[in-house]
Amino acid sequence: MKIPPVKGTRDFYPEDMAVRNFLEQGWRQVSLRNGFEEYDGPIFEHLEMFTAKSGEEIVEQLFSLTDRGGRRLAIRPEITPTLARMVNQRINALPRPIKWFSIPRLCRAEKPQKGRLREFFQWNIDIIGESDVLADAEAIFTAVDYLQEVGLGPADVSIRISSRKMLAAVLVALGIDADQLEGLYTVLDKRAKVDDQAFEKMLAEKLPDTKKRQKVIDLMQVKDIGQISDVAELSSEASEAVAELKRLFVLLEAMGIADFCTFDIGIVRGLAYYTGIVFEIHDAGSRLRAIGGGGRYDNLLKLFGGPEVPATGFGIGDCVLAILLEEKGLLGRNVPAQTIDYYLACADQKYQREVLSVAARIRRVGFSAEFTYKTGSLGKQLKQASSKNARQAIIIGQEIEAGELAVKDMATGEQSNVAMETFFAELDRSRK
Amino acid sequence: MKIPPVKGTRDFYPEDMAVRNFLEQGWRQVSLRNGFEEYDGPIFEHLEMFTAKSGEEIVEQLFSLTDRGGRRLAIRPEITPTLARMVNQRINALPRPIKWFSIPRLCRAEKPQKGRLREFFQWNIDIIGESDVLADAEAIFTAVDYLQEVGLGPADVSIRISSRKMLAAVLVALGIDADQLEGLYTVLDKRAKVDDQAFEKMLAEKLPDTKKRQKVIDLMQVKDIGQISDVAELSSEASEAVAELKRLFVLLEAMGIADFCTFDIGIVRGLAYYTGIVFEIHDAGSRLRAIGGGGRYDNLLKLFGGPEVPATGFGIGDCVLAILLEEKGLLGRNVPAQTIDYYLACADQKYQREVLSVAARIRRVGFSAEFTYKTGSLGKQLKQASSKNARQAIIIGQEIEAGELAVKDMATGEQSNVAMETFFAELDRSRK
Repeated sequence: MKIPPVKGTRDFYPEDMAVRNFLEQGWRQVSLRNGFEEYDGPIFEHLEMFTAKSGEEIVEQLFSLTDRGGRRLAIRPEITPTLARMVNQRINALPRPIKWFSIPRLCRAEKPQKGRLREFFQWNIDIIGESDVLADAEAIFTAVDYLQEVGLGPADVSIRISSRKMLAAVLVALGIDADQLEGLYTVLDKRAKVDDQAFEKMLAEKLPDTKKRQKVIDLMQVKDIGQISDVAELSSEASEAVAELKRLFVLLEAMGIADFCTFDIGIVRGLAYYTGIVFEIHDAGSRLRAIGGGGRYDNLLKLFGGPEVPATGFGIGDCVLAILLEEKGLLGRNVPAQTIDYYLACADQKYQREVLSVAARIRRVGFSAEFTYKTGSLGKQLKQASSKNARQAIIIGQEIEAGELAVKDMATGEQSNVAMETFFAELDRSRK
Repeated sequence: MKIPPVKGTRDFYPEDMAVRNFLEQGWRQVSLRNGFEEYDGPIFEHLEMFTAKSGEEIVEQLFSLTDRGGRRLAIRPEITPTLARMVNQRINALPRPIKWFSIPRLCRAEKPQKGRLREFFQWNIDIIGESDVLADAEAIFTAVDYLQEVGLGPADVSIRISSRKMLAAVLVALGIDADQLEGLYTVLDKRAKVDDQAFEKMLAEKLPDTKKRQKVIDLMQVKDIGQISDVAELSSEASEAVAELKRLFVLLEAMGIADFCTFDIGIVRGLAYYTGIVFEIHDAGSRLRAIGGGGRYDNLLKLFGGPEVPATGFGIGDCVLAILLEEKGLLGRNVPAQTIDYYLACADQKYQREVLSVAARIRRVGFSAEFTYKTGSLGKQLKQASSKNARQAIIIGQEIEAGELAVKDMATGEQSNVAMETFFAELDRSRK
């Protein structure tokens, strides 16, 4: 009986797993050096965890299940609700700011497309307990630190930044009702994805008033933070939000990553829950989907039954990122093939026990060692050593009776006999 | 709205995640040095993948779900069916022996108990394409290599080994029908878990014949491989299986791990699919559940629509292992708290930009750096540096105007000024 894998999922053969590990190790390394601690939650949660944040319409995109007790559960499509639950559970014990990261496996019951699968991995960074825009700057720095680490420069990727707080204040200053904002965000979020006509048509549905509509269209043309005040007379709230945005760019400049960052009023983010700075990471040509995105969400903990605590963060998925790295030639060179420190060749079946004994000792000291199960010709074994990327081959033959190993460097082909105890004394010294 | 986690799942706060990472990194490191390559599959598969191997009764223990296309899926309770599918898909392209490992997240819809949760992680090692008992020996060696690596010795854990092939051949030699074997295995597997009376009662249900039953009871008393022939007259098949078991112990001796390994005829393993050597890893006192187990399963690939290819392997879960390591005091000392290379203290708010710039440069070179969001007193900042386990504190004050950093060793308390360029030149040399 042959059963295929589920559509939209991936099998990670060793060469695929090497890529996944390369991405995850990079995320982990950069998170740690930026002072974040790792956390994780369960693969499934009570279904309401996800509807609480994203509404009932999310249910369609969830893999939901019912357990034997009749409870409705769902495989997590994101980790933010879990984060909110975990932080709320210990809100009084955790020293702030809470700087946490996670690399969850996530599932969405979507139609699989390029860069969008039903199962994926996502790097999440969150800073909880700090309202200052400095926390947003550090989140953005951490993302750029990773992008630079894997070899992406400002010509490859850009961080496009705006502010929900600024947008809300300016839209209100333009005469738009506060309760119209949420509906408007979903339209504005699509600005870059549709042409002018389609955008104006969508906008007209939300804003029948021609004059107000034109003001919004003008606002969305703004290229520079300084131009915002040309379009609308700024309320004190709007001025404050604009000043905060400007300060963010000053901080990003101090952190040395200004060349990656641009203001883009078109960055709105679809989700209702953002409350301040919002940003997305795109490839320079914007040919692909967003590589990642995030922003400030000061109400999330409260939404999950906790106190009001400011928070900011972002997520970067593995699918689009891997496509971009592959296109730029940054995977092949960075993801080396697995190597073996020592391949033990057996010159005669009668030495098999010695082969096993030496292999075991090498492994116990922390080095990798391989041997063949079937003692064939030495030439065949050395060929296998080479195909396994062995650095050294150790030939166990009659030298072993004098307590010696024949050690062959696989790169240079040089071979010499070494007393076994000398060999292990040296190995011990360079212990891994 | 407060929503609790699902019963039987775990939240991994940073201190819990550190333990999980410690276990996983150890598994990965030992797998690689024993020549295994990492793979993984999707978190869910078509439901039939699991019923194919374990029968319809497994459905009760699965978290199953139905996708929008009406397909019945299940979260994986084990990774072996996925392994079989993946290997079968590329059976002609993969060089043999295939030595693969994985660290899957698995879910079982069981009642949570000590050492048994609804979500857990399991180290899996498999060797496919080699029928010689040497492959079984290498699998066992890899398990022991890990146990030793984390500090467990023969006084703490033991590998209890038997052979399904031997058991089957001897039971048949004792006059038991081949088609009675499978039912008998589930009873014999419970030998160590129940008292003599209960065992004999269970056995009587499967074997009404008193004489045969007594022979089986005698067989299960055997302590030494050499005694098997005292209980039954060995057929040629049984002799072969006994010889193979003896050879396994010779190989384990050559590998230097004989003191961990004992023959235990009571190791049967419940699952029907084992075909040769079987083993379990127990704490020395057998107070806990099995830490892990495995064996040879030469029919698995065929069961999943592939050719007949020999295979052997094992799994070790994280729950019981962590309990044992905790009891032995081997977690605390091995799982160090997260440290920070440099904590940047800001002597005056006016130097904040310099703090950000120096922190960014340190991180970009690969070292970890932290700074405070709120410039309080130096004393308060140094206290934070200490609570974050910083190795060095860098105080950015008026020295920065002369291009210097005040570097304080947090262990010794020694402090000296270093020219910024000297500092970074040195950092670059020791680049991580």
